Amino acid sequence: SCPTMGRAMGLAGLLLGLVVVPAVLVSTSLRHGTPRTEAEPEPSGWELAADAVPEDSLWPLPQWVRTYPRQLQLAPSRFQLVHGAGSSAGPSCGLLQDAFRRYYEYIFGHSRRRTWGRRPLAARAEPELFQLQVVIEAGDPGCDRHPQLTSSEAYHLTVTEPVAILKAPEIWGALRGLETFSQLVHEDDYGSFLVNESEINDFPRFAHRGVLLDTSRHYLPLKSILTNLDAMAFNKFNVLHWHIVDDQSFPYQSIYFPELSDKGAYSSNLIYTPTDVRLVIEYARLRGIRVIPEFDTPGHTQSWGKGQKDLLTPCYNGGQPTGSFGPVNPVWNTTYDFMTMFFKEISSVFPDEFIHLGGDEVDFSCWKSNPEVKEFMKKQGFGTDYAKLESYYVQNILDIVSSYNKGQMVWQEVFDHKAQLKPDTIVQVWMADNYARELSRVTGAGFTAVLSAPWYLDYISYGQDWKKYYSVEPLNFPGSEEQKKRLIGGEACLWGEFVDATNLTPRLWPRASAVGERLWSSSNVTNLQDAYKRLTNHRCRML
Amino acid sequence: SCPTMGRAMGLAGLLLGLVVVPAVLVSTSLRHGTPRTEAEPEPSGWELAADAVPEDSLWPLPQWVRTYPRQLQLAPSRFQLVHGAGSSAGPSCGLLQDAFRRYYEYIFGHSRRRTWGRRPLAARAEPELFQLQVVIEAGDPGCDRHPQLTSSEAYHLTVTEPVAILKAPEIWGALRGLETFSQLVHEDDYGSFLVNESEINDFPRFAHRGVLLDTSRHYLPLKSILTNLDAMAFNKFNVLHWHIVDDQSFPYQSIYFPELSDKGAYSSNLIYTPTDVRLVIEYARLRGIRVIPEFDTPGHTQSWGKGQKDLLTPCYNGGQPTGSFGPVNPVWNTTYDFMTMFFKEISSVFPDEFIHLGGDEVDFSCWKSNPEVKEFMKKQGFGTDYAKLESYYVQNILDIVSSYNKGQMVWQEVFDHKAQLKPDTIVQVWMADNYARELSRVTGAGFTAVLSAPWYLDYISYGQDWKKYYSVEPLNFPGSEEQKKRLIGGEACLWGEFVDATNLTPRLWPRASAVGERLWSSSNVTNLQDAYKRLTNHRCRML
Repeated sequence: SCPTMGRAMGLAGLLLGLVVVPAVLVSTSLRHGTPRTEAEPEPSGWELAADAVPEDSLWPLPQWVRTYPRQLQLAPSRFQLVHGAGSSAGPSCGLLQDAFRRYYEYIFGHSRRRTWGRRPLAARAEPELFQLQVVIEAGDPGCDRHPQLTSSEAYHLTVTEPVAILKAPEIWGALRGLETFSQLVHEDDYGSFLVNESEINDFPRFAHRGVLLDTSRHYLPLKSILTNLDAMAFNKFNVLHWHIVDDQSFPYQSIYFPELSDKGAYSSNLIYTPTDVRLVIEYARLRGIRVIPEFDTPGHTQSWGKGQKDLLTPCYNGGQPTGSFGPVNPVWNTTYDFMTMFFKEISSVFPDEFIHLGGDEVDFSCWKSNPEVKEFMKKQGFGTDYAKLESYYVQNILDIVSSYNKGQMVWQEVFDHKAQLKPDTIVQVWMADNYARELSRVTGAGFTAVLSAPWYLDYISYGQDWKKYYSVEPLNFPGSEEQKKRLIGGEACLWGEFVDATNLTPRLWPRASAVGERLWSSSNVTNLQDAYKRLTNHRCRML
Repeated sequence: SCPTMGRAMGLAGLLLGLVVVPAVLVSTSLRHGTPRTEAEPEPSGWELAADAVPEDSLWPLPQWVRTYPRQLQLAPSRFQLVHGAGSSAGPSCGLLQDAFRRYYEYIFGHSRRRTWGRRPLAARAEPELFQLQVVIEAGDPGCDRHPQLTSSEAYHLTVTEPVAILKAPEIWGALRGLETFSQLVHEDDYGSFLVNESEINDFPRFAHRGVLLDTSRHYLPLKSILTNLDAMAFNKFNVLHWHIVDDQSFPYQSIYFPELSDKGAYSSNLIYTPTDVRLVIEYARLRGIRVIPEFDTPGHTQSWGKGQKDLLTPCYNGGQPTGSFGPVNPVWNTTYDFMTMFFKEISSVFPDEFIHLGGDEVDFSCWKSNPEVKEFMKKQGFGTDYAKLESYYVQNILDIVSSYNKGQMVWQEVFDHKAQLKPDTIVQVWMADNYARELSRVTGAGFTAVLSAPWYLDYISYGQDWKKYYSVEPLNFPGSEEQKKRLIGGEACLWGEFVDATNLTPRLWPRASAVGERLWSSSNVTNLQDAYKRLTNHRCRML
């Protein structure tokens, strides 16, 4: 069965608190309708048996692993996670103290388990591992800072008797190494905690490894978001792309413009207050996860119009306003006055150096119907090319956001429609149709790219689609070495049309884990059978 | 938002105990990748507003409903569910007493809600509804009996001041009527409980309305099964088809043959003990749900072979046994000795009048390789028609089970391969390919049929596939009126290859609700917009 060891109830285990056979992944024959294959061999490999290869427990696979047959034993009552000699961090580093406590719990589980049914330590011959010493090498550990695109997540882990040593240039690497160490420790049939002597040298292949959550199509309670951040940390993801508002609802409670959520949220309690937002950001930070908020304009903004009059474009029909509204109105100064104030707030509320400005799927039909917009097009010399009007709007917004010293992410249309982008703008490629060509174009034009197109996890289908996500090679697009370097990572996107708190966890995990390993591990880690075995164990551990 | 009223946490609400926007069903535009439509109108209809049509809360829709504008108010502290005058049932009827307590909780929720934030009753002008009186009309209410295929589930409900009356020929109809009554009561914005005066006359269109759960591909903890029985009752399902064992594992703990689960279960704690099985049966009985166990033979039996030597057919290659095994061995007497004992136990453990004997997807290749089987084929004059051997085996099993006075269900292949079936055998049609023709053949041969082919809910896809399940018309097959009567219902099947406790509930519900209404309501209840509205409310209530 799924090992009952380790991790406090984290993911879908919340659902019932139960012992489950591990693997939704572990499919065997498709019953009915397709030719039946022979039954799978006896599933005796579910548990991390003492003679299993220690690497079978690792996800995502580190860049370099060496393990030795000798096992060390951990005594829950004595084992300690501590700051090592020479570390710039110490007991005043709240982030690491919090991580020590968290990973102690993950490794040894609930206190009940520490005393129940355990043989005396002397019953085993293995030598004891007494400590994991964590050494931060940077002069200033920066325990109160936020992770950034340029943060180092590298670490070096050595497990030998009598102490294990985890060295990392920055605290962010220490967090990743703690996760890896916790994955190495396993519980044997008698409840003893064991770890093989080993050495691991690890760092991420890509710097931007994100999960997109959409809280507009369906509201997600805070608890869902936090649980998801835990799952992200288990898979070494480092960016929460928070698609916080959209046409359907505006749950973000603005300080300057409270009417946006008063009128635009599904209801008055389905909102994210400033306190909620701070909590998400801090919970993420403690796990080395950046929070990039997306406030998508000028399209996808129907819900904005409810609380902010004269922001959206009035649509016309036969010379008369129809009463319905289109994208944000790009011709009025008041629009930019509002956006200046609004993004001033967003820039201060969200500490990350990047804001996602959206810019996708702008429907021109309403703009085309509006006399004022048509007049403006003429005045600007845009002819009938509404993509130029879109770019005009977007550039204004980019300028506003730049003035607050924020970097920008945009969806690919902003690039496609030839807006003048700042050189450090990150273009997110989402259209499934020939995304390799688009990556080639974006990076060829000198821009940084993030890939999501093959990882729309809201699209579901029967069977093990994780293999499809896993088999993507992000750098498989035409381009120079320089271009390849400009692809800084990817995101697994879980759009919310059919997702809410009732199904988020089992829908996203462990499918997103496939993306997590693709973005962290070496490009040659592609063996599906090996991945299957490790992912099965990883899923059990997450549960 | 989803009304916070009513139902104690039942389904996926378990997951987080939260307020969710209702509708995974309520999709709007598909974001990205497909042309975007305009945003949906403001979702102001999520709540059962005071001016909503009362019928909007009903699922499945009763056969005959009349509601009146006048509303009555229920005071949680005074309202009672009681036995009415003239009822054959009284306080000694445990089944109804239990149902009264359960539905009181569903209607009024947790005790906290009864006192918190509620206006004094006098604040509303509505007259009060004091009681729901339940009258069982049968001479003997049979409160300790089990529901059967022939049980009546009809009921008549009248809600008028000052008491509502629920009349039913049998207790099973009373259970259905209690569910309907609970769906009529709603909570207004101020926390008052209201019900419109109304009259409902109701009965099921089909007698057999099932959900198939598979506990072999993945073990399901007892709690998952019980939660699912609650959901089934909310949707007026009346059969749990328990596909309890299969190739992958044998979690049923047999009294006569304990080695079957000792060796064939995934592990020693992933089993259903006799106590577990009794609990499932009783929990189901209290909700008017039959439990039909399936012990599928001669195929799908790999797990049986582990605990029962000499039961499966040894496969040969080049005149030598390969060490692997095929279907149950049909040529040895010991096979039938074992099955005689085994089904004696099953017939006594499961009180339902039917046992499902499987009989699907028998792979002949191993039989064909085995010298003893070939010799037997010759002796019996079967030539090379292994379907005849299959039928020979199945008929032996049918005879055994008949001798215990049990009716039989089988998968369609047993009929297709021309086994001599008892006239009352129920043939379950599962092959998607032209199932109408198969229904025509089965019923044309005089057999009773149950339809599952269009309702394989383990197959998932993006979007609102409930509409596909809903739009099936089971009687749309060629045949006489007599033939149509022989189709007694259908089953939503959730095979377990990719299902365990972590995703069962959000995967099955509310998709199975579509099948529930199709099998209960009148054939002319087919409007998708109307169903969408009611199903949205029903999902909220289930949560």
